[in-house]
Amino acid sequence: MFSSNNNFQAMGREKDKLIGKSCKELKEKHGFDKDGLYYLKSSTGVIYETFCDMTTDGGGWTLVASIHENNINGKCTLGDRWTSQQGNLENFPHGERNWANRVIFGSAEGATGDDYKNVGYYDIKALDVSVWHVPNDAAMEHWKASAIIRYHTNSAFLSLNGGNLYELFQRYPLKYKGGTCQTDNGPSVPIVFDFGDAKSTKEMYGPSTYGETEPGYVSFRVFNYEQTPMAVCSGVKVIGCNSEHYCFGGGGYFNPARQCGDFASWDWDGYGTHTGWSASQKITESAVLMFYR
Amino acid sequence: MFSSNNNFQAMGREKDKLIGKSCKELKEKHGFDKDGLYYLKSSTGVIYETFCDMTTDGGGWTLVASIHENNINGKCTLGDRWTSQQGNLENFPHGERNWANRVIFGSAEGATGDDYKNVGYYDIKALDVSVWHVPNDAAMEHWKASAIIRYHTNSAFLSLNGGNLYELFQRYPLKYKGGTCQTDNGPSVPIVFDFGDAKSTKEMYGPSTYGETEPGYVSFRVFNYEQTPMAVCSGVKVIGCNSEHYCFGGGGYFNPARQCGDFASWDWDGYGTHTGWSASQKITESAVLMFYR
Amino acid sequence: MFSSNNNFQAMGREKDKLIGKSCKELKEKHGFDKDGLYYLKSSTGVIYETFCDMTTDGGGWTLVASIHENNINGKCTLGDRWTSQQGNLENFPHGERNWANRVIFGSAEGATGDDYKNVGYYDIKALDVSVWHVPNDAAMEHWKASAIIRYHTNSAFLSLNGGNLYELFQRYPLKYKGGTCQTDNGPSVPIVFDFGDAKSTKEMYGPSTYGETEPGYVSFRVFNYEQTPMAVCSGVKVIGCNSEHYCFGGGGYFNPARQCGDFASWDWDGYGTHTGWSASQKITESAVLMFYR
Repeated sequence: MFSSNNNFQAMGREKDKLIGKSCKELKEKHGFDKDGLYYLKSSTGVIYETFCDMTTDGGGWTLVASIHENNINGKCTLGDRWTSQQGNLENFPHGERNWANRVIFGSAEGATGDDYKNVGYYDIKALDVSVWHVPNDAAMEHWKASAIIRYHTNSAFLSLNGGNLYELFQRYPLKYKGGTCQTDNGPSVPIVFDFGDAKSTKEMYGPSTYGETEPGYVSFRVFNYEQTPMAVCSGVKVIGCNSEHYCFGGGGYFNPARQCGDFASWDWDGYGTHTGWSASQKITESAVLMFYR
Repeated sequence: MFSSNNNFQAMGREKDKLIGKSCKELKEKHGFDKDGLYYLKSSTGVIYETFCDMTTDGGGWTLVASIHENNINGKCTLGDRWTSQQGNLENFPHGERNWANRVIFGSAEGATGDDYKNVGYYDIKALDVSVWHVPNDAAMEHWKASAIIRYHTNSAFLSLNGGNLYELFQRYPLKYKGGTCQTDNGPSVPIVFDFGDAKSTKEMYGPSTYGETEPGYVSFRVFNYEQTPMAVCSGVKVIGCNSEHYCFGGGGYFNPARQCGDFASWDWDGYGTHTGWSASQKITESAVLMFYR
Repeated sequence: MFSSNNNFQAMGREKDKLIGKSCKELKEKHGFDKDGLYYLKSSTGVIYETFCDMTTDGGGWTLVASIHENNINGKCTLGDRWTSQQGNLENFPHGERNWANRVIFGSAEGATGDDYKNVGYYDIKALDVSVWHVPNDAAMEHWKASAIIRYHTNSAFLSLNGGNLYELFQRYPLKYKGGTCQTDNGPSVPIVFDFGDAKSTKEMYGPSTYGETEPGYVSFRVFNYEQTPMAVCSGVKVIGCNSEHYCFGGGGYFNPARQCGDFASWDWDGYGTHTGWSASQKITESAVLMFYR
């Protein structure tokens, strides 16, 4: 009575649809124009499923990653895949290395409830990024409407950096003491808002950060005073050195330890208080979804 | 010599079989009647593979989750996905939230060796649940025969609670101090045994628990004296307040800390001793498999 | 505008290719002869993707697992899936049990950046193993060329041990105090080198280990002085009892604790120093890829 056959073959039926390497290819070559889940096939032949934004600014945006803070009190503990899950360790200067390796985790539908990284993160060759801050645990069909911020770049900056974030972070490694504040930061790229605006985005972070940031950009590999690199500063260009209060992701060591974690030290002056160096509760409790096009 | 093509397309061949949203649909619409692995397709288009019980009480049961205690001495540490993996934290009152989010983990064949949760957990709209307690590391082809307890509900109680456990736990959140013992417990539903019986199931838990439980039910969201909610009490209705000794899963904080974990405090009077408040070794070393129909 | 259909069906198109249970079957029955990713289908109907080495010694080698040391300073902490992730615990004598259960994790392309175990590990019936030591984070297309050591067995030893490592470790359980050094070790099997040689492989481990090993073998379930079993000793036969310095994987308890972890105590006399009992940096920073044929 135990079945060793299965019904997988059925998936080849129904009306034929075509497959591509990215949402952009699905949109441009095959005309798919609805937001939702699609299957993609990597250049090495991996077939995977992710969310395509087929409508913003002409569509063709592929979801490749989400950064979700599961427990801001857990300082570089389980769930901090975009910094370190090993504790705050000086002899672990690169942290988990997930910004710059081919390890994948999570699922598209779970992207607001846990970290997510798919094959597209390192496989797709793209020009621009789009970023959404979506409240934790929002269901996929509500992501777009519930996002508190949505923006994209349109300068093709990725083409100068290897075509995706995997390649960008080969060029700008995230290593403790791999550079110094202001001097060795990576690119800062102007953004166009699809929901929200530059000023309100900047002001999601703590009031004490306002003097350190210029709104209207997305920035990569930004060092702080203690020479810890952070991966991404969303919505802002960085003109100061306390980036742990408004950037996310990075290497494996922060100083002091209570700054270690995917959302670093967004809670420095209390969780979600939006006073001093603390970000608002809204942005602290939103996952960051990253797309390529 | 490096292949960038692959043979995935072959899966569309062989004799066509049909695909559905649940094992029930596969059984009713397409006549599949053997236990085993099948592919399902969610309402959002996710294709995933899980185990279907196609024979018990007419069949059509979809495996959607397993709760596996990997280390009862690890108190809310790695592997306690159904409570907390962050340690026992008062300021983490919801725990991992996996009962009420769309995060998935594990694989069907690995469901007796680690936790499992698939897309069906939140996608399938069902009427009833079935529960199997299967010895750890049993191979799939032996699950049914080796289960120490198997039962199902037949009152369509899920239809009153949103159609699945994801929805039920939206209605009955698992939050520390979100309610009190006896007063705020969720539904308790009569069960029909497919293997074992009500009395022997109840008596798998420690002798000291007998005065607190009535056999022949499955219960959801049960608070203990310390206001910690547990997710499921398998086999029993709860008439006491020491539910940490016979319920599993829940929020992120237990008091005292040694009660924290997926199987909570089933080892209070020693591991597997079946004396005092301790459950039998048999049920402690079995994974709990949960099905919908 | 939200799509609930998807384009998965497209995968049934293009020219038909055939599917098998192992890379060997794909090679022998269907003539695939390029290294790369292929889809396989298990005896229970699970479809999964892994890397096939289609060229070494006639090809037909299926990648089933990788052992990757993410942080040798983390002693049986997160990432030590092949020993224990629960800390070094005497009452956790079997550790994670992943050598002997059906839990799977990781992805083929991520196999040099994190641990990997697929369905083939327990499903495929094979005769021999092949082992590659590949530098961490190497991309799949460079694995073969960048490997520091590659070898295979050709004595069909797996046929005497159940046909795969899952079965072998049922016969030779990895349990602390489950045996003693020298007396209860598992099989030691001669190897043929595909890249590198026996002597240089042995000499990747610390100079102090040379008196304890004979080059030209791969060995399984080897106990040390403290009765801790290790899973695999790559490149060597073991004639001593300090196996924690040149074997990997194993149970959940080591004595002292600083020997606990996937690469055990390869760093005893400093990380990557290649002095005393410490292995070279090269082998310490390489993932071990395991294939069946």
